[in-house]
Amino acid sequence: MQQGKQSIRFEKTPYIRSCASIVGKKEGEGPLGSYFDKIIEDPLAGEKTWELAESQFQKEALTLALKKGNLEQNQLRYLFAGDLQGQIIGTTFAMKDIGIPIFGLYGACSTAGEALSLAAMTVAAGYADEVGAITSSHLGSAEKNFRFPLEYGNQRPKSATWTVTGSGAFIVSSSQGSVRIKGITTGVIKDYGIKDSMNMGAAMAPAAADVIYQNFQDFDCGADEYDQILTGDLGSVGKEILIKLLKDNHYDISKNHMDCGIKIYDDALQDTHSGGSGCACSAVTLAGYGMDKLMKKEWKKILFVPTGALLSTVSFNEGQTVPGIAHAVILERQS
Amino acid sequence: MQQGKQSIRFEKTPYIRSCASIVGKKEGEGPLGSYFDKIIEDPLAGEKTWELAESQFQKEALTLALKKGNLEQNQLRYLFAGDLQGQIIGTTFAMKDIGIPIFGLYGACSTAGEALSLAAMTVAAGYADEVGAITSSHLGSAEKNFRFPLEYGNQRPKSATWTVTGSGAFIVSSSQGSVRIKGITTGVIKDYGIKDSMNMGAAMAPAAADVIYQNFQDFDCGADEYDQILTGDLGSVGKEILIKLLKDNHYDISKNHMDCGIKIYDDALQDTHSGGSGCACSAVTLAGYGMDKLMKKEWKKILFVPTGALLSTVSFNEGQTVPGIAHAVILERQS
Repeated sequence: MQQGKQSIRFEKTPYIRSCASIVGKKEGEGPLGSYFDKIIEDPLAGEKTWELAESQFQKEALTLALKKGNLEQNQLRYLFAGDLQGQIIGTTFAMKDIGIPIFGLYGACSTAGEALSLAAMTVAAGYADEVGAITSSHLGSAEKNFRFPLEYGNQRPKSATWTVTGSGAFIVSSSQGSVRIKGITTGVIKDYGIKDSMNMGAAMAPAAADVIYQNFQDFDCGADEYDQILTGDLGSVGKEILIKLLKDNHYDISKNHMDCGIKIYDDALQDTHSGGSGCACSAVTLAGYGMDKLMKKEWKKILFVPTGALLSTVSFNEGQTVPGIAHAVILERQS
Repeated sequence: MQQGKQSIRFEKTPYIRSCASIVGKKEGEGPLGSYFDKIIEDPLAGEKTWELAESQFQKEALTLALKKGNLEQNQLRYLFAGDLQGQIIGTTFAMKDIGIPIFGLYGACSTAGEALSLAAMTVAAGYADEVGAITSSHLGSAEKNFRFPLEYGNQRPKSATWTVTGSGAFIVSSSQGSVRIKGITTGVIKDYGIKDSMNMGAAMAPAAADVIYQNFQDFDCGADEYDQILTGDLGSVGKEILIKLLKDNHYDISKNHMDCGIKIYDDALQDTHSGGSGCACSAVTLAGYGMDKLMKKEWKKILFVPTGALLSTVSFNEGQTVPGIAHAVILERQS
């Protein structure tokens, strides 16, 4: 049960019953476009604001995940949910009428890992049979929240990432599914003193390296335990740092590491610079691409490691650093 | 284990091993002043910004709770923590160097209930032996985040609450303590269409009424099951609505209800209008006053119901409503 310093190995292993990925137009045009369940072409998703648009993506993702899992809404006992916006209003206005007990989460772009971890803990302990884990992000609401409103039209440096518009939803179940959550490793906050909000990859890489290292330690394994290690949104800058930090600690993940942020866009064609980011980046990449690879038996066991940069405009403007966090989830296909 | 529709009755009941309440000057001068562990007179707590001051309150609360529980920091396996600030930076900068696996939470002023619920679930399931649950708020950072910076000197309407400056920390333990967490009832979001960010009590009262009603239903009990029902920060306006809503549903809690927001200040002397609010309001009132009443055997069993108003300046300025949420925690002294 308690495994090593920061991990849990589930005895009654919960399943991923179903999942759904809803993305925006740009994500749909990217290399993973065909893996996503639905592409909403209108960036406002029929709403009046970026914030309500984000809520709409979340609503659709949950609805579709339930449908794919043959569940009614009222069969969900809990929701673990979060987003990037201040006071997670994307989640509030998505879930305000749904009537399901909800735990609001904030782990920046690591929230998909946090939500899956807590959902798995809840189901494995017998507190619930069906639990939703859902996260979202939206380019419009995120740029307004963290950098500049889109309408301002500022230039973006090469190290900047592009916030993924979308939402990924997972139904964690006690009884059904082809992929199991075998264990989790919960991350600690790591502060390497990065102060550049346009270089999130460098801020998050140490936290990712730390939680992956700890996962190897706690489960007494190495990189070859996993067919793939999927980090959240380190981008090309952060990926390089991650691989170096783990090499310094005698682990080589270069052969089976992919970063969802790098995978989701084609920088040469889509001008996205360092890659995708946002709570939705890792969530839709896992729900779309990752689960497909598991189901098609191309992968058997993976380590999913969403990564978050912990800042706000207030902390940034007050000259604070950007600490990072990452949470790891072990997913394995039933043979 | 699963109890009714929204509740858990713990089989292996976790304990509150220790707790700590650190407050600001105004809270120290209020009716509960003598119950708090420490009063920090300087509103900046020796820091340069309101935000870092809030982090300092959180650090001191956790340190003191650990000390009172005879625990070293590294004996905590998890932290469940949150605050009111956008992207919960109060928590980030309090906990960034502590090296404990952390789940960041956002439930507005209900966060103390959310943190205690998840900490209890984690300990009762055997995932950890010692877990921290900690929340904070600060008048300066909250006014800046939600209304007007203090420096602006705006007038406050009579229905407005005063954000409590402070932090409450609890150590939830598998083995030690005189008070047990017997069960929890997790709330759903309730939206009654309130749009006034200066009248949070009215926004939160329906969520509080709903979760208390559900607690009575799930555990097949009524108001007399508890020596006291402590809501978070409804204030005088919200208290009236809460009692009426439950009366409409045939429960009378008027005789054993107290609201932490009303209790923490003396409006006549302190000009706080509708009462206290903020994540710290319920947390320090429970950690200081409530736990004292339990330990002195004046109360045996209580229902702790922190209440949260779910809004941000963005949602408010975009004309959205202020939905509410509340989470209930059943605390009982060992005979």
